[in-house]
Amino acid sequence: MSKKIVIIGGVAAGPKAACRLKRLQPDWDITVIDQDNLISYGGCGIPYYVCGDVSDEQELRSTSFHMLRDESFFANAKGVTVMTRTRALGIDRRARTVRIENLDSGEKSDIAYDKLMLSTGAQPFVLPIPGADLDGVFTISDLHKAIEIKERIAHGRVGKAVVIGGGAIGVEMAEALTDLWGIETTLLEFMPQLLPRIVDWPFAAMLKAHLEEKNIPVHTDESATEIVGNDDGVVVAVKTARRTIDADMVIMAVGVRPRSELAAEAGLLVEPWGGIVVNHRLQTSDPDIYAAGDCIASTNLVTGKKTFAPLGSLANREGRIVADNMAGRVSTFNGVVGSFIMKAFDRCIGATGISYETAVAEGFDADYALTAPSDRAHFFPGEAIVVFQMVFDRGTRKVLGLQGFGVMNDSVSVRIDTAAALIARGATIDDFATVEMAYAPPFSAAIDSLNAVAFVADNLCAGLLHKVGMDRFLAWMDDSSREQDWVVLDIRHPKETAPFVEKFGRDKWVAVPYPEIRSRYQELPDDKTMIILCDAGTRSFEVQVFLRHIGKKNTLVLSGGFNVIRRIGADWLPR
Amino acid sequence: MSKKIVIIGGVAAGPKAACRLKRLQPDWDITVIDQDNLISYGGCGIPYYVCGDVSDEQELRSTSFHMLRDESFFANAKGVTVMTRTRALGIDRRARTVRIENLDSGEKSDIAYDKLMLSTGAQPFVLPIPGADLDGVFTISDLHKAIEIKERIAHGRVGKAVVIGGGAIGVEMAEALTDLWGIETTLLEFMPQLLPRIVDWPFAAMLKAHLEEKNIPVHTDESATEIVGNDDGVVVAVKTARRTIDADMVIMAVGVRPRSELAAEAGLLVEPWGGIVVNHRLQTSDPDIYAAGDCIASTNLVTGKKTFAPLGSLANREGRIVADNMAGRVSTFNGVVGSFIMKAFDRCIGATGISYETAVAEGFDADYALTAPSDRAHFFPGEAIVVFQMVFDRGTRKVLGLQGFGVMNDSVSVRIDTAAALIARGATIDDFATVEMAYAPPFSAAIDSLNAVAFVADNLCAGLLHKVGMDRFLAWMDDSSREQDWVVLDIRHPKETAPFVEKFGRDKWVAVPYPEIRSRYQELPDDKTMIILCDAGTRSFEVQVFLRHIGKKNTLVLSGGFNVIRRIGADWLPR
Repeated sequence: MSKKIVIIGGVAAGPKAACRLKRLQPDWDITVIDQDNLISYGGCGIPYYVCGDVSDEQELRSTSFHMLRDESFFANAKGVTVMTRTRALGIDRRARTVRIENLDSGEKSDIAYDKLMLSTGAQPFVLPIPGADLDGVFTISDLHKAIEIKERIAHGRVGKAVVIGGGAIGVEMAEALTDLWGIETTLLEFMPQLLPRIVDWPFAAMLKAHLEEKNIPVHTDESATEIVGNDDGVVVAVKTARRTIDADMVIMAVGVRPRSELAAEAGLLVEPWGGIVVNHRLQTSDPDIYAAGDCIASTNLVTGKKTFAPLGSLANREGRIVADNMAGRVSTFNGVVGSFIMKAFDRCIGATGISYETAVAEGFDADYALTAPSDRAHFFPGEAIVVFQMVFDRGTRKVLGLQGFGVMNDSVSVRIDTAAALIARGATIDDFATVEMAYAPPFSAAIDSLNAVAFVADNLCAGLLHKVGMDRFLAWMDDSSREQDWVVLDIRHPKETAPFVEKFGRDKWVAVPYPEIRSRYQELPDDKTMIILCDAGTRSFEVQVFLRHIGKKNTLVLSGGFNVIRRIGADWLPR
Repeated sequence: MSKKIVIIGGVAAGPKAACRLKRLQPDWDITVIDQDNLISYGGCGIPYYVCGDVSDEQELRSTSFHMLRDESFFANAKGVTVMTRTRALGIDRRARTVRIENLDSGEKSDIAYDKLMLSTGAQPFVLPIPGADLDGVFTISDLHKAIEIKERIAHGRVGKAVVIGGGAIGVEMAEALTDLWGIETTLLEFMPQLLPRIVDWPFAAMLKAHLEEKNIPVHTDESATEIVGNDDGVVVAVKTARRTIDADMVIMAVGVRPRSELAAEAGLLVEPWGGIVVNHRLQTSDPDIYAAGDCIASTNLVTGKKTFAPLGSLANREGRIVADNMAGRVSTFNGVVGSFIMKAFDRCIGATGISYETAVAEGFDADYALTAPSDRAHFFPGEAIVVFQMVFDRGTRKVLGLQGFGVMNDSVSVRIDTAAALIARGATIDDFATVEMAYAPPFSAAIDSLNAVAFVADNLCAGLLHKVGMDRFLAWMDDSSREQDWVVLDIRHPKETAPFVEKFGRDKWVAVPYPEIRSRYQELPDDKTMIILCDAGTRSFEVQVFLRHIGKKNTLVLSGGFNVIRRIGADWLPR
């Protein structure tokens, strides 16, 4: 028997569910409604459209075989009815109807459903500061805004810009404005680091350093307090407590929140922060109403808590699951580990699971292993260093998260995706130590970086490795005012250590090359803690084990070593 | 209490175990013996050394921080004794001694052990054909051979070469000879396809087509029957049943077998094919003797059978596990899924788990899903098609294997590694359909290719998708002699279909564009089976569902579509 399906929201989850359902139940009547006239687009592609990598907005609305996904495409190719410029005003669950308004004619009517899907997405926050409504201030809320931003730039109206918000969209937009258009762009983030809650600070610091290399000033711990306009109501500057920054354009990318008013008004359960409550089959508290995409509350598989995971990839997978369940096939979506990946100029940064900071806050017996190995065989041309941090629970040895920072290729993606599959299944450090990474020199090292970081975690858990945090070491180095109770033991090649010894003196910077430690350990001080330094931390660990064995227990290994220090940057680095 | 450890074999697993063990038990006395003078090298890097990507053989013997891993490095930096040019002649398990010979002095002696490790590696097969011992015939057995090959080429002595064996090393060597040196190289494989038992034939066929594009004639199903020499005993040609091929050099890469004579002679359990039997802690049948690396028998986690997995990556991980267990830490190696990856010129080919052919042979209710999606968002610059095939069991829905073929980047690696982690844990199609791949347009499509291929498998299992194999379709197309009971229904864009309709006529090649199917289905024939063709198979599936719904059940979808056909190549393709 044919059923009538109504889907509210036509960007990602909605169209996916509609098309899948039409394949499962070809005689069902499926209607998608959306208040916009542009539907079914790749919203995540907006920064690449603004920067010109994607030349035409229609590419974001096209299939991989270059057909525009508009109303007639859905009607002709898919057999799905799409009503654009149509707003859902309310749901009458008893009558099973949705009250809709045609935004062009103003006409209102009711549309009946047997099953209803909410894929209403998310909407950007707007900071409640003066000037937020000025001409030239944009949120990245839909394709219309993106088109307007690009037109303004293309017409030469933007020489300087401020991006407010150092999350993924903020960073991507800052790159987009700078890279092709050469707009002088400043990035503001009110939290103490970029990508807050997504990565731990060393990763945020490496990203920040790279953005600054690319001439984007990044001000963290700094809020926009006011957006200033001229007499025509056009933005001219952004004020913070510390400075005023000239700007012809302001991008406000301070997060999004679920669009769930319709659900709440219909009496469906909604989390306090706005996510629509769904079960594993993506049914809301009304079994005839499903929800998917950016408007729902997902379960974090690591913490067990409800979480907000607004990503086009999840929306598509959830859309398929809604369709299956509506059609009578049991299909479940159990939750997310929170995988994240981003391009930033010539670098890639990724994460899955939870950060160390979050793990501590969630009450885990948390620790982390940081290392900086090669992304492929060290002798293979084009090999590059990639920094990985594994977050784990010391008690259960469960891996809670992984973060990666490397050059712009898929090498971070490889490890983040593999880690996500394992973390979702409760994998331990030992599972990571033996996970089978396909090996050939052009693709990985014989000891893959994912295995390598698990080895470090294993050594930490076993009490073999005693580390000092990068934060503590860098703070020490910056505080040169007073006598310290520690020295550096730099075990790199003499060519590498010489400028440091020269700058800091032999009292603070002891240099003994790695292969000479076993014959020269008598030279090392006993009265101070030695911070052992190499490029990645691997040799330092080996030296620490040896020194402890011969009785010198006054050492700490700087995990990540110079590979991380150099990527974060420090004023005290010679030259 | 200090213990004496002897390790026989100093390439990969042996040195790894020695160094790890020294970190766990710094006062133990650890000796590695090897009959060669060159030790601890990246054997997998040999093809890249021969082709010049790696300019110096010493790079293969160096650490990532550019130190040569020779005897003095192991002594000074690691505290490990290495005896090179020292052959192990026999093991006296009762006395716990190894009889050794100094190959330079001829002196023999006994060396005592508390625990012994065998990491004796593998040795290449030599074909038992006339001329196998001629000057200019090489196996890739060690670094000395590699150096000799490169010197011979560098001295201009090699204009033409034949590589016997179309496995990974054979293909890599064929590329190495052709790419930098411009040597006219021919590849012979006696099985009907390249990479036999590793990938299924469509993947081997795509690889073959790419090698031929790069001017390497590939002759499959063809054995070398004789290697012909001149009067000086130098190779001049290779004979097969079908031809004689001029050659100044012959590389024999017809597989390797475990070096386990020492183990067998000492009465340790050895598989009939030569792999040393070990338990999960990598102990041989003598609990004081461990074995790791290319000389052991591993467990295939998909079939449960013993398997041979000679890879430097596994050897390294196993070496660490041996050290842990020797030191008293329980550490296990449960088996392998058989991950494989390889660069071949501008392409990458990878696999994990078992092939469809193997799955059928192993008695699974095997089927496969083939598709050819984009490796990242289709609107992102540099996006490329990647072909994936998932092998699964219809009854349990367990995924048994995955194969991938794409351009030379890490996009295949991402999916193979994630799949390996899942397959090792018995994951089903549904686990793959929801696996969380980190998403941003520069890294993946919103529906990642790993999710996409699982969707195809799901549709096959559910009886929604009815496919025809690429083999059957290509055989039909090649057999143009007789009247056929099928026609092609090509649903691509008219610009793409026009040359086909022109060449084959409207009786054989029916072209109706995808978005017009719903309005023009009356034009389609009822008396013949329609093979629905598009680029990847996705649109074809959708059209099949619609046609079945309106009563036309006479259709089959060609999985992989034109994306696969074009990569395999066919004489009948227009132009």
